[in-house]
Amino acid sequence: MLNASWERPPFDIVRFAHVELVVADLGAAREFYVDLLGLVLTEETDDALYLRGYEERLHHSLVLRRGAEPALGHIGYRVWSPDDLEKLARHFEGLGCTTHWVGEEAESGLGPGRALRLQDPLGFPIEFFHDMRPAERLTQRYDLYRGANIMRIEHVNLYVPDLLPAYELYRGLGFRCSEYIETDDGQLCAVWLYRKPTVHDTAFTTGYGPRLHHLAYAPADSQSIIRICDILAGAHRESAIERGPGRHGVSNAFYVYFRDPDGHRVELYTGDYYTGDPDFEPIRWSASDARRRSYWAHHVPDSWYDEGTPVVSLDGRTVELKPPVVDERIGAVH
Amino acid sequence: MLNASWERPPFDIVRFAHVELVVADLGAAREFYVDLLGLVLTEETDDALYLRGYEERLHHSLVLRRGAEPALGHIGYRVWSPDDLEKLARHFEGLGCTTHWVGEEAESGLGPGRALRLQDPLGFPIEFFHDMRPAERLTQRYDLYRGANIMRIEHVNLYVPDLLPAYELYRGLGFRCSEYIETDDGQLCAVWLYRKPTVHDTAFTTGYGPRLHHLAYAPADSQSIIRICDILAGAHRESAIERGPGRHGVSNAFYVYFRDPDGHRVELYTGDYYTGDPDFEPIRWSASDARRRSYWAHHVPDSWYDEGTPVVSLDGRTVELKPPVVDERIGAVH
Amino acid sequence: MLNASWERPPFDIVRFAHVELVVADLGAAREFYVDLLGLVLTEETDDALYLRGYEERLHHSLVLRRGAEPALGHIGYRVWSPDDLEKLARHFEGLGCTTHWVGEEAESGLGPGRALRLQDPLGFPIEFFHDMRPAERLTQRYDLYRGANIMRIEHVNLYVPDLLPAYELYRGLGFRCSEYIETDDGQLCAVWLYRKPTVHDTAFTTGYGPRLHHLAYAPADSQSIIRICDILAGAHRESAIERGPGRHGVSNAFYVYFRDPDGHRVELYTGDYYTGDPDFEPIRWSASDARRRSYWAHHVPDSWYDEGTPVVSLDGRTVELKPPVVDERIGAVH
Amino acid sequence: MLNASWERPPFDIVRFAHVELVVADLGAAREFYVDLLGLVLTEETDDALYLRGYEERLHHSLVLRRGAEPALGHIGYRVWSPDDLEKLARHFEGLGCTTHWVGEEAESGLGPGRALRLQDPLGFPIEFFHDMRPAERLTQRYDLYRGANIMRIEHVNLYVPDLLPAYELYRGLGFRCSEYIETDDGQLCAVWLYRKPTVHDTAFTTGYGPRLHHLAYAPADSQSIIRICDILAGAHRESAIERGPGRHGVSNAFYVYFRDPDGHRVELYTGDYYTGDPDFEPIRWSASDARRRSYWAHHVPDSWYDEGTPVVSLDGRTVELKPPVVDERIGAVH
Repeated sequence: MLNASWERPPFDIVRFAHVELVVADLGAAREFYVDLLGLVLTEETDDALYLRGYEERLHHSLVLRRGAEPALGHIGYRVWSPDDLEKLARHFEGLGCTTHWVGEEAESGLGPGRALRLQDPLGFPIEFFHDMRPAERLTQRYDLYRGANIMRIEHVNLYVPDLLPAYELYRGLGFRCSEYIETDDGQLCAVWLYRKPTVHDTAFTTGYGPRLHHLAYAPADSQSIIRICDILAGAHRESAIERGPGRHGVSNAFYVYFRDPDGHRVELYTGDYYTGDPDFEPIRWSASDARRRSYWAHHVPDSWYDEGTPVVSLDGRTVELKPPVVDERIGAVH
Repeated sequence: MLNASWERPPFDIVRFAHVELVVADLGAAREFYVDLLGLVLTEETDDALYLRGYEERLHHSLVLRRGAEPALGHIGYRVWSPDDLEKLARHFEGLGCTTHWVGEEAESGLGPGRALRLQDPLGFPIEFFHDMRPAERLTQRYDLYRGANIMRIEHVNLYVPDLLPAYELYRGLGFRCSEYIETDDGQLCAVWLYRKPTVHDTAFTTGYGPRLHHLAYAPADSQSIIRICDILAGAHRESAIERGPGRHGVSNAFYVYFRDPDGHRVELYTGDYYTGDPDFEPIRWSASDARRRSYWAHHVPDSWYDEGTPVVSLDGRTVELKPPVVDERIGAVH
Repeated sequence: MLNASWERPPFDIVRFAHVELVVADLGAAREFYVDLLGLVLTEETDDALYLRGYEERLHHSLVLRRGAEPALGHIGYRVWSPDDLEKLARHFEGLGCTTHWVGEEAESGLGPGRALRLQDPLGFPIEFFHDMRPAERLTQRYDLYRGANIMRIEHVNLYVPDLLPAYELYRGLGFRCSEYIETDDGQLCAVWLYRKPTVHDTAFTTGYGPRLHHLAYAPADSQSIIRICDILAGAHRESAIERGPGRHGVSNAFYVYFRDPDGHRVELYTGDYYTGDPDFEPIRWSASDARRRSYWAHHVPDSWYDEGTPVVSLDGRTVELKPPVVDERIGAVH
Repeated sequence: MLNASWERPPFDIVRFAHVELVVADLGAAREFYVDLLGLVLTEETDDALYLRGYEERLHHSLVLRRGAEPALGHIGYRVWSPDDLEKLARHFEGLGCTTHWVGEEAESGLGPGRALRLQDPLGFPIEFFHDMRPAERLTQRYDLYRGANIMRIEHVNLYVPDLLPAYELYRGLGFRCSEYIETDDGQLCAVWLYRKPTVHDTAFTTGYGPRLHHLAYAPADSQSIIRICDILAGAHRESAIERGPGRHGVSNAFYVYFRDPDGHRVELYTGDYYTGDPDFEPIRWSASDARRRSYWAHHVPDSWYDEGTPVVSLDGRTVELKPPVVDERIGAVH
């Protein structure tokens, strides 16, 4: 059983807010994310695309940056006030991390204002920010909706070799646990953690890590998930569909997973539930329950358990991977 | 009670197949039908647009022709074989109608092949045709779907001053009755007639006639009806929504009615039922049952009962209107 | 323009959590809420029904209590910790309100634990609580879903004669504003206020007040809103549908309003957006914009603006009504 | 390329109309078909259940009859007039088949009136009928809808060892071809045949035959297909889901396949298209196109290609199976 006790930390992380992905071909990425999935292109530069959902009021929730190899650039969390950035810097310095400050200029005026960057103890490059340039909210511009009718960024899912240190790090950041999977002998396989009162902002999955498992956006409704599969097939891009559509056991969301032209995994996810009550208790799933990943007991392909996006550290090196302690599929220690 | 006895006539009308509408401004019509509703533009000439749904294999199901005044040009029915055209010509000549033959050349190569045109005894200009140039079926080109995801033409609804002659004329053409509305003292107010095994190809509604009440298309699903209302509102065109969305009592279909820039009424309609069995018996609705027009008892605006598209005869004159014998709203004789 | 500046108060109201309604006939209420709408009946006593949605983990979100006249019993808000109750008691005492404490015994063991009750300066009977007996979460028991597939309570909407005092009272409780309607000369007509990061927990509408305008539940999806209208009509209960289904301008939600057998108004509401970011700015709608209440510009019936549920004070008297300062429909001072 | 030329035969088969399945446990069958899927139980006898969809006006479209081994009892087609039965008897006698007549008494008054039964040259037991006792149409009794909201029977799919004789037999019965799959060297793997103007009444699939591949019902909409999977999983019956939900390439329908407690395969199928035009041309799919069976290129499990329901001849013997000439999966001759 997970220790779900929890204390409000001195800083306030509001939510998971954006991701930067390194892609090899910006044109192919644009065709996939903008022309097919229908994300809104806020701005385009020579080496990057800045994208958002129809509902989003910030400049971007996804940056696609040209680079030699597909990689995770960083994960961005929004904080409630500028003070929280200072407190978080001290918190991570206390954990032995080196912190960096980036500003408007560092982002060519396209990204957040002054922001804190660091490589966390798990090896993930993180950005905490408070300010970002606004963009027009398009929630009710239904005449502009295309593709999967994507409203807003939802969560990020990360591979780690060992679940418990990841859980403890995020518990210390004020994240609560909504659901988790463990083997019948008590090995944690996956955990869903939240700040906004949904099932998660960040999930951790057992696997070679640190790597990005997937990034998720929320579409307008479950019908949009059916439709985007039809659209991809209509455009002869059906091979981008890796898993689903289906219903998750964990989270109860309706989902589909795609692989973008660089192999980054993107989920569309809708229909989870409210987790904001003070007495919310995490839901435990056994790794032997076929409904945990697919409520309809659909087979989950091995690629979904094995493949992911490598992480680039803030100084540009690819972060070395460690093998997982447990394999959820066999429920056994390696 | 309606006399629903029925004999197979010597000709075979397959289905209602197209409409020609006269519009004042082709640009405004194109914006409405193509940019907003999402109909496929097969071809465009100086004075006409030829449109179809994603599923349709014929060149068009709607012609919008430029003209001085909004009007109904003609209604087109497809027949099973070229022979049926000859038989229909004799049938209508026997009813005292003058028949005309139009060919490829008359249609600038854009319409049906050799076709029969006549003004029926009710005053409506009708075209019967067998051949039409094919167009690409786009059913599975979901990447091209826009607007209301319109699949195919569905039916036409016509105002007549007196229901019984209209019913008898169409019964003689081989149409069967699926549903009808009558007052409690037995006055027929509306009747739904079909050749293809759905609720209707052609409906007649009591009112100043002959006029076109509306033209209907079938969208991919009921969700598309919600979405197109959102799209119209997102484009500040919400005033085009005249009635609905809602559920019909008659037909059970989910519907919405729009008024196009010329005031022509267009319905999106989905979810009726199969009527092809030999023993199908017409369903009677009382004019005093609030659920007949809107199963949810939504108020039907007077414009929906009163307004319509005038008819132009084949020789170009506007057909004179006669007042209705009965008003469904008050269920009383005029 | 609304003054949206905001400070975090010393207490933490988590969300709007339940309502108690007085109904004349428990059998009729049960048929409406349980058999038709499909709410889960947690418990039934001689004089009350305790209901919840499929997702809810607390004993009830709606109490229907038998009484002589339809009335609002009280509105319940959940707080983060027991300490918050003490702080709220002092806060309301400072506003001149008399506070009461009720406990398990007072509720026959069916309601919250120790709870704070008071009549707020607007005249509404409020309960703040921290603990309530748990109930089984049925989120994934789809085999039990019925009716409108109601997941959880969503918000409450209250009539007040003057908007500004209501807004200021709730701003002082830590509520933020998501959207508001004002006349073009700056008279506030309606305001949407939230604690959980959605469009609202509580809205205020101009009208004779204090009265309850409506209570809202969140169904599983917008399709469930169409379906429940069909169900009501199928059961010949279509007259319960007062307004909608439709799309709200304010909130962007898809909605329908019913009137229960006692005339209490219930909304089903789904599809609003995330409001939890620190820099969220309230959206202003003009009372002269036809899309504010219905994005599709559907007519809003006068009953929806005029009728509501009277309030019973904590000592059992019906609270006297005051006329509204402004009428949103005409945008003019009375 | 398929020879799609076609002549109207002297009899008129209206549509595929019912199936009789032999099941080992009527209680388990009732729980699956009635309690979970939501079919309407018209009548129940000691040894059979008579089921229909909400829209159906006949006594049943599915008979589940108790027997020692799961089997296909017979397939029923409705004809336009009693005369058609005589003509069909002569037609099949001309093909060397023995014909039998069954009447009301033979069916205990629960089935069709006088009906023609025969074992066709492919080995399938067929019933042609004109009359059947009516049942109440429940199309608009939405308050009674449960499970998958099943409206009407849709089609039947049969395994045959050799496609061409099956196609020719049905072409001779007046069936037209909508779509077909063939290997790149021209071996026919599957064919979809229709009388009602949809994609099919009857399909043939290559495999050990004669056997029943599946029976299909039409639900109210594609959302109902998602929901019934949720319901099955909610009731811990997720293992009944064999394939899907997904979108078919052939037919364009949205689908899911279940296996009932006896292993009979049932499909829910919605969203195909109109095929009634005289010039409709069959659509060819290559067996090497991954989108033919699943437009999203989902993997089709081997069980779906290999398993099926044995056929019992009219004199009660299990019909011997022959191996297929071609395997669609490898596109090669055996």
